[in-house]
Amino acid sequence: MQFHYNGFTPGDPTTARIGNPEDTRPRRDPLPEECDVLIVGCGPAGLTLAAQLAAFADIKTCIIEQKDDRITLGQADGIACRTVEMFEAFDFAERVLKEACWINETSFWRPDPETPDHIYRSGRIQDTEDGLSEFPHVVLNQARVHDFYLDVMRNGPGHIVPYYSRRLLDLEVDPNAGTGARASSHPVTARIERSDAGHEGDVETIRARYVVGCDGARSVVRHEIGRKLVGDSANQAWGVMDVLAVSDFPDFRMKAAIHSANEGNAILIPREGGFLVRLYIELDKLNENERVANKNITVDHIIAAAQRIFRPYSLEVKEVPWWSVYEIGQRLCDKFDDVPEDQIATRLPHVFITGDACHTHSPKAGQGMNVSMGDGFNLGWKLAAVLQGRSAPELLHSYSGERQTIAKQLIDFDRELARMFSARPKTGPDDTEGVDPAEFQKYFVQHGRFTAGTAIHYAASDICGGHDNQHLAAGLTTGMRFHSAPVIRLADAKPIHLGHTVKADGRWRVFAFAASDDQGGPDGKIAQLCDWLENGTDSPIRRATPKGADLDSVIDLRVVFQKYHRDLRLDKMPALLLPTKGRHALRDYEKIYCPDLNPGQDIFDMRGIDRARGCMVVVRPDQYVANILPLDDNAGLAAFFQRIMLPAM
Amino acid sequence: MQFHYNGFTPGDPTTARIGNPEDTRPRRDPLPEECDVLIVGCGPAGLTLAAQLAAFADIKTCIIEQKDDRITLGQADGIACRTVEMFEAFDFAERVLKEACWINETSFWRPDPETPDHIYRSGRIQDTEDGLSEFPHVVLNQARVHDFYLDVMRNGPGHIVPYYSRRLLDLEVDPNAGTGARASSHPVTARIERSDAGHEGDVETIRARYVVGCDGARSVVRHEIGRKLVGDSANQAWGVMDVLAVSDFPDFRMKAAIHSANEGNAILIPREGGFLVRLYIELDKLNENERVANKNITVDHIIAAAQRIFRPYSLEVKEVPWWSVYEIGQRLCDKFDDVPEDQIATRLPHVFITGDACHTHSPKAGQGMNVSMGDGFNLGWKLAAVLQGRSAPELLHSYSGERQTIAKQLIDFDRELARMFSARPKTGPDDTEGVDPAEFQKYFVQHGRFTAGTAIHYAASDICGGHDNQHLAAGLTTGMRFHSAPVIRLADAKPIHLGHTVKADGRWRVFAFAASDDQGGPDGKIAQLCDWLENGTDSPIRRATPKGADLDSVIDLRVVFQKYHRDLRLDKMPALLLPTKGRHALRDYEKIYCPDLNPGQDIFDMRGIDRARGCMVVVRPDQYVANILPLDDNAGLAAFFQRIMLPAM
Repeated sequence: MQFHYNGFTPGDPTTARIGNPEDTRPRRDPLPEECDVLIVGCGPAGLTLAAQLAAFADIKTCIIEQKDDRITLGQADGIACRTVEMFEAFDFAERVLKEACWINETSFWRPDPETPDHIYRSGRIQDTEDGLSEFPHVVLNQARVHDFYLDVMRNGPGHIVPYYSRRLLDLEVDPNAGTGARASSHPVTARIERSDAGHEGDVETIRARYVVGCDGARSVVRHEIGRKLVGDSANQAWGVMDVLAVSDFPDFRMKAAIHSANEGNAILIPREGGFLVRLYIELDKLNENERVANKNITVDHIIAAAQRIFRPYSLEVKEVPWWSVYEIGQRLCDKFDDVPEDQIATRLPHVFITGDACHTHSPKAGQGMNVSMGDGFNLGWKLAAVLQGRSAPELLHSYSGERQTIAKQLIDFDRELARMFSARPKTGPDDTEGVDPAEFQKYFVQHGRFTAGTAIHYAASDICGGHDNQHLAAGLTTGMRFHSAPVIRLADAKPIHLGHTVKADGRWRVFAFAASDDQGGPDGKIAQLCDWLENGTDSPIRRATPKGADLDSVIDLRVVFQKYHRDLRLDKMPALLLPTKGRHALRDYEKIYCPDLNPGQDIFDMRGIDRARGCMVVVRPDQYVANILPLDDNAGLAAFFQRIMLPAM
Repeated sequence: MQFHYNGFTPGDPTTARIGNPEDTRPRRDPLPEECDVLIVGCGPAGLTLAAQLAAFADIKTCIIEQKDDRITLGQADGIACRTVEMFEAFDFAERVLKEACWINETSFWRPDPETPDHIYRSGRIQDTEDGLSEFPHVVLNQARVHDFYLDVMRNGPGHIVPYYSRRLLDLEVDPNAGTGARASSHPVTARIERSDAGHEGDVETIRARYVVGCDGARSVVRHEIGRKLVGDSANQAWGVMDVLAVSDFPDFRMKAAIHSANEGNAILIPREGGFLVRLYIELDKLNENERVANKNITVDHIIAAAQRIFRPYSLEVKEVPWWSVYEIGQRLCDKFDDVPEDQIATRLPHVFITGDACHTHSPKAGQGMNVSMGDGFNLGWKLAAVLQGRSAPELLHSYSGERQTIAKQLIDFDRELARMFSARPKTGPDDTEGVDPAEFQKYFVQHGRFTAGTAIHYAASDICGGHDNQHLAAGLTTGMRFHSAPVIRLADAKPIHLGHTVKADGRWRVFAFAASDDQGGPDGKIAQLCDWLENGTDSPIRRATPKGADLDSVIDLRVVFQKYHRDLRLDKMPALLLPTKGRHALRDYEKIYCPDLNPGQDIFDMRGIDRARGCMVVVRPDQYVANILPLDDNAGLAAFFQRIMLPAM
């Protein structure tokens, strides 16, 4: 898609419509008095969380935002491969892939040894290693990602539409809260001030079972639960600008990291539509405790700095739709909820913080929006499971436990990347302060999986089994995201990606990979597993599924055989693999899969699955591998779900 | 995507919204007094034509429809590979691919020789041969295809919104029309009756430069220009129904052609959402001149017939969202416009007919909607070129010339397919009336390219060169659709499909395939071609492009080199391949491509392009290959465009 070539226009490029259509203008109704979840802030974390909660008609979610409407220009733009996989779970990956700019290669520029005040290309790498994800690394205006989430929220069963022009004043948590029973109460009370025309200064009070602060680096929610962002003070200013510009720089449509000899450093990020580019430009070092706001930096300073760095290439800026100046700093909260470390055993969390509210860092590695959305996705299914009575509220402790660790890793990585990037290029072997741009490139490549978001690895816990059976599926690591692979659907021979069956619907998945000779017949382990899951007294499906609900509504079993799809007989499959669903008791034909036998596409080979024994892979609602078990380990599967799920009522 | 499992609901499955959002409710304003093109009928042909015309802000199109709003249930559902390619040109292929049911395999069922009153599977084939198209054969409710077109129409520069509740009464063509100059007049006058509340019976008069009848088998436009559908009378009744049903038929999610011994024949088509299926069911032979309406056939008759054909398999119908009974008949008009055969040299067409208005046939081969949309696409760019003064109005003769031939082929094919399908299965070698189902399967496979829509081959004409240089690109046949292949875009290393650069924007494309050693340098033929196209006095780009317009706005040159993309230098490319565009004179970086060097993906191999000599491939605005020329045949290229384009004013 090409757009912006006659100048920048915000909004959906396919409609060329500026502003919201009739039915998406900001609502003007007052907040309700009560809700299940109050989300503070319509940023990436808050919208991901809201989109997840919108999957449930019986969960009442309110999301508020200080701004008076959806944003049309966003700060963030980098979307990691792993994030596109998550978008697929929310069913809008194809909209992002169509509209975004794909980052296919990254190039590295350094001072030309012959003419040091000129830059030259010292390296060029494939941005994402082959096979790391079925999706590319892309770049798209954060505002459009918001739009896609707002659609999911509005169209979902929970029908969530933000309340804009609302500022959180304060929070109070009932000290007697935390009995854990859903019916108990709405222990958090929030006071919220309106700023929309006719209601300026009106204060509303809302009581919530849970409050989630997605309210950014100056989070009021964080302040109210007494947590602090702790970390390095920033002493380096960067300018960032989105420009429509003409340049003879040869990599003007590639991601490029540029180190100049004496003029500082820059990162170029091509943007959606084929014309827009983003430039991150290093500005002068700040003095200690000097703040950006005091420097009176204008966009002309940034443009001039960019032009100096780009020499000998031209950079003629025609339009600047957005620009900003910021300081690098890596800061982190020690915990992401309202329960002190020493009270975890005795107290339940009711307030959470996500995204920039609990971790801030430089935008250099393009991680901010991605990790924030990961926070929202991680918390969302857990809140839903607890609110719907499927899991005990102790599950909610795992949010801070899992995500604080990830944020810490991000911040350590970002600190090192920022340090290496901001250092001046090494001038020679005796230069101990400079950094060799080749070293920077090496560090960048080494951490490719990290920046792609696919290296996230949750520690063992009740919701993440250990590695006892890792050898049964060497390529599907427990604690890491389920790495998708192609399969053929038996009933209609459609080629699909197995991982794309994991939608953001709060369900757990069990993928049973059949042993080599199993064709689904009654003597095979698949049939025995199905029989037990359908009829066994200790079956987790029987235990967890409410009476009258579809059999796959809580735990969704899908089977992958090893045979060519034409060699299997659908009419010989166990009944649980053709479950009847809905008010007509229609059959669901989408539970049985076969490998794609084209060269290099067999999921058993791609993911190192034990062909002789097969295995079960349990996948969480947020697409992470929760457990790997032998195919006949009924007791192990029952025990796993017993730890994390309550019996259905 | 799964939907309909709790019963059928029309509309967009992602919004679950029934009815139109605020901004797409039927308009209530009167028709204008004048327009450039009046389209009668909002079926597939009319909407394709309107979507094409919506690409032009300066063309005033009115589209009217008898019904009172967009449809929510459609008759047609089959979407051939070629049609998805066309949807890609209209930029909504991904919406169709996501929502539609993919037809991956087709199975054939016949009487079991052991138990003749039971059917058994006698064959199974891949539905579309490998490499035939980058898109699959899919099935989707016609109403949704309409929705996607309506979005393109509303969002396009021409901003076209249908006038519903409008019935064409009559047409009058000014006998003095046809001087050919655009400014002359609006020679067609149409009288139209309203049927919307408050306006019942109101008659509006509109004058148009062109009128297009997309008004179906009972076309008033056809009647007004005195043409007739001629062909076989129908004597065979078929029932068709969309059902939500439970069955143990093993291919219930496959396309299946079923011949029973004594109960007639059926076709099963799985439908979008994973639960719905369509069944075509042969009903009793009709007596001569007996019409379906007289038979009092109910849906229960059709269900009962289906159940008999499916034996020994069960078929329990739970819901029938739509059903109908129809008669097979193949009928065709001899010409698709208002100019008699013997007056082509002296008279210009002003009225056209498309789709069912000029060709009707059985739905068995899933061709109807596809060929109708092909009509609309073929006519659309031609009307636009004439209305914008880019081509002489004689171009419009080619619409009937090209499409009547295609319709004739379709009807011949359909007649034979219907005959073979409706015949009873051959009982033995002495049975001369029956058809061996194996023969039917063979016919079906042989004509796979035809049903995929990729076999359409226009005869040589001014807009379709001959085959003099076919050897330079053996896999891109002049007169057939440009068969896309993967490439890598030089500026950003993005893998794309070259054919997807051909958007429905009325532009002609010249794809220049470089000779093996050419790297774009000044001595190579690519640079020489670019230099001539940019500066040559006889350059078709200079001749055809209006002053001040972007250099690629009428003829869009794109180049494919043979080298690995990292071995080419963007900064050494000819200026025309990095053209400056728009009010900021920004560079367009999307004109230069390289082969995808992964095994089997090299476009030069895939399309048989002469590596030593390269070539130019001229592609029409409707994606058909118009000409193949040697790379240095400037005169040939100039002459080709001179025949079909007027000099820009």
